[in-house]
Formats: sequence, C-alpha cells, structure tokens
Amino acid sequence: MAKITTIGLDADDTLWHNERVFRLTHDRFCDLLSNYIDAACVEDRLLQVERKNLRLYGYGVKGFTLSLMETALELTDGAIDGRGMKQILAWSREMLSHPVEPLPHVRDALIALEDEFQLVLITKGDLFDQERKFAESGLADYFTGVEVVSEKTAASYQQIFERYGQGAERAVMVGNSMKSDVLPMLDAGGWAVHVPYEITWALELADDPENAERFRRISHLGELSTLLSDIRSRE
Amino acid sequence: MAKITTIGLDADDTLWHNERVFRLTHDRFCDLLSNYIDAACVEDRLLQVERKNLRLYGYGVKGFTLSLMETALELTDGAIDGRGMKQILAWSREMLSHPVEPLPHVRDALIALEDEFQLVLITKGDLFDQERKFAESGLADYFTGVEVVSEKTAASYQQIFERYGQGAERAVMVGNSMKSDVLPMLDAGGWAVHVPYEITWALELADDPENAERFRRISHLGELSTLLSDIRSRE
Repeated sequence: MAKITTIGLDADDTLWHNERVFRLTHDRFCDLLSNYIDAACVEDRLLQVERKNLRLYGYGVKGFTLSLMETALELTDGAIDGRGMKQILAWSREMLSHPVEPLPHVRDALIALEDEFQLVLITKGDLFDQERKFAESGLADYFTGVEVVSEKTAASYQQIFERYGQGAERAVMVGNSMKSDVLPMLDAGGWAVHVPYEITWALELADDPENAERFRRISHLGELSTLLSDIRSRE
Repeated sequence: MAKITTIGLDADDTLWHNERVFRLTHDRFCDLLSNYIDAACVEDRLLQVERKNLRLYGYGVKGFTLSLMETALELTDGAIDGRGMKQILAWSREMLSHPVEPLPHVRDALIALEDEFQLVLITKGDLFDQERKFAESGLADYFTGVEVVSEKTAASYQQIFERYGQGAERAVMVGNSMKSDVLPMLDAGGWAVHVPYEITWALELADDPENAERFRRISHLGELSTLLSDIRSRE
C-alpha cells in the first residue's frame, strides 16, 4: 500500500470551537422572536430558510445573518422593529470577531505530525472569515497550505491532495463532518477519520459509510498519531 | 528579459459587468431611504459604513447587503419598516443571481491568448459568488486556474504566479483596479495592465504609479494581444 504523505484537517469544530458560537446566536434569536411569535416554530423555519439559501449564499456567518433576518421578517410578518434588526447585526459582528479557541489536544497533535507529513487545512465557507480564524488560532505555522473551497467534494479533495502530496490515495482527511470531511474523501479513494464534535449542524449530518475499509473514528485529535501508526502498519 | 509565461486576469469589471449591478442597488437604496431622510447624505454614509466593515466582512454582495441594512437602520434611527428591509434582502438575492454578461472583446482576447500563455483568473471577494459567476460566464474553459483571494497583495501575486508559471517577473496582471490589480503586481515585480471600466468603486481608486516601466494601459481587452507582442519584443 502506498505511503501516506499528507494529512488534511478540517477547521471549524475540528481544530477550534465554532458551532457553539452559532448555537448561542440561535438561542438569542429564538428569545428575540418569542416577543412576537411562538418560539417553538422558529428553529424549524430558520433551518428551512438556511437550506434554501445555501445555493445562493454558500456557508458562513454572513449568509447565516441574512437568513436570520429573512426568517425574522417572515415569521413576524415584517413587524420586527429596528431594534431587533440591529440586534441581529450586532450578533453577526460578534460572531465575526469571536476569539478563536483551539480544541484540546490539537496543538500537540499538530506538533507530533508536522515533521512527518504535509499538513493542509481544508475548509469551506467564507474565505475572509476562515483566513481570519486561521491567523488568530496560533496554529498557522504547522501547516504547509490552506485551502478554502466552496464545497467539499471528491473532486476538490483529489485536486488538493495532488497539489500537496501524491494524490488522495496517499492522504488522510480528518474532520468532524461525516457529510463534508468523511464521505467525499472516501469517494476520492483516500482515508477519512471522523472526530465528532459535541454538536453538529443539522445540514452536516450523514450516516456512517458501509464497508469502508479506509474509514476510522477517534474521539479527539490526541488519538490521531496512534491511529496513523496503525494505518501505516498496513501500508 | 525573461519570457512571459502567465497572464492573470481580474474578473469583475474586467471580464464581465459587475459594478453597474452595485450602482443599480445604490440608486434603489437612495430612493428607498428618501422616504425617511434627505437622500443627499445616504451615499456618503453608506461608503463610510462599507469602509468600516471591510475588515469584518471582506468584499462581496453579502457584506454589502449587511452594510446597506446597517446604514438604513442607522440613518432612519431604526424607523425603516419590515417592508424596506425585505426589499434590501430581495435586491441582494437579485445581485447574487444576476446573469453574467462578458464585456466586449473578452472572449476573442482569451481565445487569442490561451495557446501561448497560462491564463489564471485572480479575483477577490466572496468565494462562492465568484465561482458561480465564473461557471456562468462561459469563459471557464480558457483558464488554467482560478484563485480567489481575500485581498490582492504583492505576496498573493508572487505566490499565485509561482504556482502557475515561473513567478511574477514572468507574468502580466490585467484588471480594472489600480489599487488591486496594478499597484501590488508592480510591487511584486511583474507587468501590470490597467483596463479602466466605466465606473470604479470609490474604495478601489488610486493614482497612477510613477516611473513604472512595467505599467501599461489599454482601453479594452481587444488591445491586449498587440500590447503583449510589444512587451514580448522587449524580452
């Protein structure tokens, strides 16, 4: 089996906390709208609006903010006042300047791997915000490259791992999303390691792959080095 | 002098119309706010808000939309109603799905150059929207690569032209913005060709460079091929 040359790592909720910042805004949003309508229906409608808008906005905080505003205007039938709308804009600014907090074990894992492998950060979403978080994370020095893509597909993994290394077959992708980090990487012929985060956005959920020889799961990045030795022993 | 290997081309207002879509929204926005306040102050305040938000939102339609909303809420002191806010969201969706219309001479210019040079599209702004426009433009087949960056700097040009070709010294960057396409490319040691568009966003204005041997200006892309022959004759 060919030697592993490159490790791809997802960013949000793999290297640092992210989804809980969105959850906090979700909760605040439901509170805000409870002044106008039954809060129980807010969450569902927001998810529908987000799903509908993905093809127009892509991923990231700015698109999420526009979806919050659309949902608020729709569910209150335009009655939400200027103060409420300003509130939503303020949350958005807060999300976009939120301190970046690396997850436990991440730095040690990167230090353990950086000499032996090319490390590439692979993330989707808003280019500008992802670069900001990467710069603020204090982790940039461990990486050979950063690739922000609009969607994680088998084709995008193939292209990236050709660029950094010798193709997806000799690479491992590590991330918290089954839908984005695991399944398309397996389709590309590579290894995929799932590291679940405490919460997963509904639009990133997917079932485990069946009969996938190159699929693994670990509980945190501190287990990655041992797992890679195991994969390597099969090479 | 070393042989030119690569041509970088800006996208918005170099390959296709873009700024006039923003201008249309500007005009509609001033009309909308004229129901509340003196329209004369709208334009200035919007530009201030856009400038302030650049470091948070970066470039693109979604950030622009959030700046419109912030300006509207601020200038009307929160009095703009739900209908007005919905209107702004609708304009934003319209901008994000606006048909892409290549500028005159563009296709022929690309056909004339594609065999001899590596052509790379280099744009800043929203990754998702720029990829959408590139795909819809019908021009994708002429390009070797697409690079969406958060800001066009000498360093980003150096990196991109190392990747596609043999460095900035052997590359020409072509675009409508003095600030983004011309000045940083000259700093990187490359050739820069300015192709003015009919309107320029205030935040992209800059003076001509002084004593820049590698700076040229053409009036449309139909003149690029002849200009390159001229540059080449100096090699």
